[in-house]
Amino acid sequence: MSEAAITLDGWYCLHDFRTINWPAWKMVSTEEREQILAEFHSMIDKWNETEANEKGSHAIYSIVGQKADIMLMILRPTMEELNEIENAFNKSRLAEYTIPTYSYVSVVELSNYMAGESDEDPYQNPHVRSRLYPTLPKASHVCFYPMDKRRQGDDNWYMLPMEDRRSLMRSHGMIGRGYAGKVKQIITGSVGFDDWEWGVTLFSDDVLQFKKLVYEMRFDEVSARYGEFGSFYVGNILNPDHLARFFHL
Amino acid sequence: MSEAAITLDGWYCLHDFRTINWPAWKMVSTEEREQILAEFHSMIDKWNETEANEKGSHAIYSIVGQKADIMLMILRPTMEELNEIENAFNKSRLAEYTIPTYSYVSVVELSNYMAGESDEDPYQNPHVRSRLYPTLPKASHVCFYPMDKRRQGDDNWYMLPMEDRRSLMRSHGMIGRGYAGKVKQIITGSVGFDDWEWGVTLFSDDVLQFKKLVYEMRFDEVSARYGEFGSFYVGNILNPDHLARFFHL
Amino acid sequence: MSEAAITLDGWYCLHDFRTINWPAWKMVSTEEREQILAEFHSMIDKWNETEANEKGSHAIYSIVGQKADIMLMILRPTMEELNEIENAFNKSRLAEYTIPTYSYVSVVELSNYMAGESDEDPYQNPHVRSRLYPTLPKASHVCFYPMDKRRQGDDNWYMLPMEDRRSLMRSHGMIGRGYAGKVKQIITGSVGFDDWEWGVTLFSDDVLQFKKLVYEMRFDEVSARYGEFGSFYVGNILNPDHLARFFHL
Amino acid sequence: MSEAAITLDGWYCLHDFRTINWPAWKMVSTEEREQILAEFHSMIDKWNETEANEKGSHAIYSIVGQKADIMLMILRPTMEELNEIENAFNKSRLAEYTIPTYSYVSVVELSNYMAGESDEDPYQNPHVRSRLYPTLPKASHVCFYPMDKRRQGDDNWYMLPMEDRRSLMRSHGMIGRGYAGKVKQIITGSVGFDDWEWGVTLFSDDVLQFKKLVYEMRFDEVSARYGEFGSFYVGNILNPDHLARFFHL
Amino acid sequence: MSEAAITLDGWYCLHDFRTINWPAWKMVSTEEREQILAEFHSMIDKWNETEANEKGSHAIYSIVGQKADIMLMILRPTMEELNEIENAFNKSRLAEYTIPTYSYVSVVELSNYMAGESDEDPYQNPHVRSRLYPTLPKASHVCFYPMDKRRQGDDNWYMLPMEDRRSLMRSHGMIGRGYAGKVKQIITGSVGFDDWEWGVTLFSDDVLQFKKLVYEMRFDEVSARYGEFGSFYVGNILNPDHLARFFHL
Repeated sequence: MSEAAITLDGWYCLHDFRTINWPAWKMVSTEEREQILAEFHSMIDKWNETEANEKGSHAIYSIVGQKADIMLMILRPTMEELNEIENAFNKSRLAEYTIPTYSYVSVVELSNYMAGESDEDPYQNPHVRSRLYPTLPKASHVCFYPMDKRRQGDDNWYMLPMEDRRSLMRSHGMIGRGYAGKVKQIITGSVGFDDWEWGVTLFSDDVLQFKKLVYEMRFDEVSARYGEFGSFYVGNILNPDHLARFFHL
Repeated sequence: MSEAAITLDGWYCLHDFRTINWPAWKMVSTEEREQILAEFHSMIDKWNETEANEKGSHAIYSIVGQKADIMLMILRPTMEELNEIENAFNKSRLAEYTIPTYSYVSVVELSNYMAGESDEDPYQNPHVRSRLYPTLPKASHVCFYPMDKRRQGDDNWYMLPMEDRRSLMRSHGMIGRGYAGKVKQIITGSVGFDDWEWGVTLFSDDVLQFKKLVYEMRFDEVSARYGEFGSFYVGNILNPDHLARFFHL
Repeated sequence: MSEAAITLDGWYCLHDFRTINWPAWKMVSTEEREQILAEFHSMIDKWNETEANEKGSHAIYSIVGQKADIMLMILRPTMEELNEIENAFNKSRLAEYTIPTYSYVSVVELSNYMAGESDEDPYQNPHVRSRLYPTLPKASHVCFYPMDKRRQGDDNWYMLPMEDRRSLMRSHGMIGRGYAGKVKQIITGSVGFDDWEWGVTLFSDDVLQFKKLVYEMRFDEVSARYGEFGSFYVGNILNPDHLARFFHL
Repeated sequence: MSEAAITLDGWYCLHDFRTINWPAWKMVSTEEREQILAEFHSMIDKWNETEANEKGSHAIYSIVGQKADIMLMILRPTMEELNEIENAFNKSRLAEYTIPTYSYVSVVELSNYMAGESDEDPYQNPHVRSRLYPTLPKASHVCFYPMDKRRQGDDNWYMLPMEDRRSLMRSHGMIGRGYAGKVKQIITGSVGFDDWEWGVTLFSDDVLQFKKLVYEMRFDEVSARYGEFGSFYVGNILNPDHLARFFHL
Repeated sequence: MSEAAITLDGWYCLHDFRTINWPAWKMVSTEEREQILAEFHSMIDKWNETEANEKGSHAIYSIVGQKADIMLMILRPTMEELNEIENAFNKSRLAEYTIPTYSYVSVVELSNYMAGESDEDPYQNPHVRSRLYPTLPKASHVCFYPMDKRRQGDDNWYMLPMEDRRSLMRSHGMIGRGYAGKVKQIITGSVGFDDWEWGVTLFSDDVLQFKKLVYEMRFDEVSARYGEFGSFYVGNILNPDHLARFFHL
């Protein structure tokens, strides 16, 4: 048996993708649409308050292409809170005009591959805490995809010795570091929670950086030999102004 | 031909996952919703009676994410009883507001890999009986996933000699034992009953333990080389109070 | 080129799986439901007559889990008759309350792997005839699954010499023989007719025997190295009494 | 780079599979159904005229099992004509009672593997022309499936030298020739047009010959090592009499 | 780690595939249909203006077979503009009569495999610019498919040294060059944007050239060993005249 990687785990995370049922939305009167959006905004107001109190965070993006029209990404300290937010949204009036297309359940994760050795409790380290319990950036663009480490014939990540995995991850991390300031990356672990092992959420003000980063990494052995990737979602931020325009007919 | 593993088989098991049709549910009057839930609760009352009489067991959980909203897990002595409960639920009024999304048919199973040799009839052993005919714990969280042992090129579990399988399973079992008191695991066999070979249902009061357990096991050769995994479902318990809140609008 | 296996082929076979649209069924008046079921029973009466005349056979089972609620299995001398029965059912009133979920088209098949050599015309042998044109048993339980022989890298069944295949099938058949009297197996070939190469239909009064048989076989090289399996369906017999209860609200 | 096979290409081909929405069809009055079928028959009349003028051909079959109820197979000199026929059918009244389930876009193809060398323009050879621009036989049964040549590890058809491919195809063709007079085969190429590389359409008055042919070929190296197969559709001819009975309630 | 390929990236690209809901379209009055199409044409007019101003381009094709009825292909300088066009179409009246079936998000891409070395800024080179910001040809036919470079066992493109990839791509490019004047090819990169690594869009006045080109390439090592292909869509141009006929009942 290989030595298992140790993880630090932060806030629980729900990515919730939906398309809009535009024909149904168009059948609603302007006045009713305003009421429905007001209800949605009062929900967002509560989320903003939670975020201001550093008890969670969230992000709302539109998604390009038919896979989804909007993505809600929610971070909370417990799985119960995620479930409550999900159910509250499902019971809201706006939800009647949305069709679920994909979701992802995970928890913010830091792995020990890069960690130095120390006696310190990492959960008390302010830098670690800011990464485990992050306020999501209000970047112009988002990119989400789930992934696995491959277990196939000679390309079996989980059979590699810890030292090899650590060294591979170090060189992989170097690529990411080259995008510091351009792309912010949040890794969430989903083993036992959802169908892939990790979710990757990238934020950037320049959407092309997502392509450059993921493509450059694909030539690195960690991705080239050991990466398995799910669907990719890319989108644009929906701040309050954008939201109004998005739902306007 | 490899020596086949011998199993002990207990109660039959149905996992039944559904989403709620919230827009339809919202169109029902408060009074009617109460009648519908009363009918559902009277069904649960019967299940509770069966459980009290040790003739079966059940669990009701909400599921996080879009794969399902609720999961019913039912244990009964015969396949006919499972089918009757399923059909009774399908004919109930609540079912009109649910949409089936996944189900799993299996039977509680203990394998002989870990068994000592003995002349005793294991079906008379009280410890074995409590595992074959278990009362499901009322833990805060549940995790369900189906799995296969791989048969692929050099990684073919079913071509391994019994002795190798036994030794691999022993080390695998050691990891599970490290989670004693934190995670309760129920293995159900589904060869000949459903699309994967086993269902794994985990119960815990700390949802993070699911991730820790499954991730640690993934580095063990049994999972790393021989495990194939289906979809993962994670959720929160729905006791009567939670159920009321869950269906409340 | 490997020597091809020779088959004997009997009656054509349609497995037809459906779920019941319970909410729609519940909206029908009791009187109308009785008329609809009477029409269905008159269809079954004709099938019974055909079976009594040894011109075909059929079986009706409920299926456990969400994959289907009922399975019709129909054997007839020609593909045209299968198609007529299928279309007649589709035009019946009961069909309006069913949703097709899966079907399988095949023909009862005996392979020559086990055959002795003889000058006799096997189609005149009464024992062979009873297997090619079987009356389906009224067993309590059914199990159906489609399967392929693998053609993958070094595990390529169709590249094996006839002698190897014959010897592997002989040892495989020995396992089946251990279940004589407990499980009745009907093999139907579907190369050129449907998406897998064979359908396997098992009948037993003890549902657990399906699991024991399929699991024991999985350790045999024929399944372990060369078997690819589709979805498994398991169910309980619907004789006239059961049918009445099944459709009763 | 391997030497590419050269193909001769004839008429473009659309296979169009549909199920019938029987509950909707039953809600139409007898008179209206007759009008709808009359419109459909006038469309078929035009197709018959085109066929009589040797400007195309078509076939209409019922399909056994739930994958489809009917298949239209249309051959025409241009992709535009295929599209026009498809759109005309979609705009017809009968189409309102059908649900598309599968389609296949391809072009009648002859490969040069079997060709002798000659200076002749094959497109002027009457025998070649009759195969590139065929009138589809009115056989009792049809079988359709799409297929690829495998490109996987050591089993990579497209990396084989031309000489090896030619020799493999020759022995493969010998099997087909053994079914001359029993099965008529039309190969259509779909590289660049649809998801598989070829469509195979078989016609026979004895449906069992499809199984015998495809099964025998599976033991030949071309299929055993290099064949990848999609879904199989099998059906019975719908001549005008059959069509009337098929749509009759 | 292999040296990563460098790309030049141009306009963002959305391929949007839809089927027409013909039964619903037929229920609309002639007058209303004209209004709906007028709204659609005024949208196209704006796209034409953008194209005339070299701020983007677009193409509208019908698709043969059931995968889609129409394809919109849109090129724009930003991901936001793509999203706006998508949402505007979704809010249009015509969209109520369409059903989304597939979409693809990517960016026009040139790779450096073929590039000579130079100090010049390629983004200032007029030839490069005309390929990064192309006006889509009004060819009679289109072919679209997404693809990956394989990462599987010994066939792992991303583990090859740059020199090998460059040499393989050079010979691959030679095939393409043989179709100059017959087929115009636009490569769009989608790593980080959608589920495959590239989209390939081919334009030609002779639909058979798509088959010839893709089939010839399949024998080249780049495709034979390293190509993985998604669904293929083929279609005919919908210029204003065709559009009128397409929507006419």
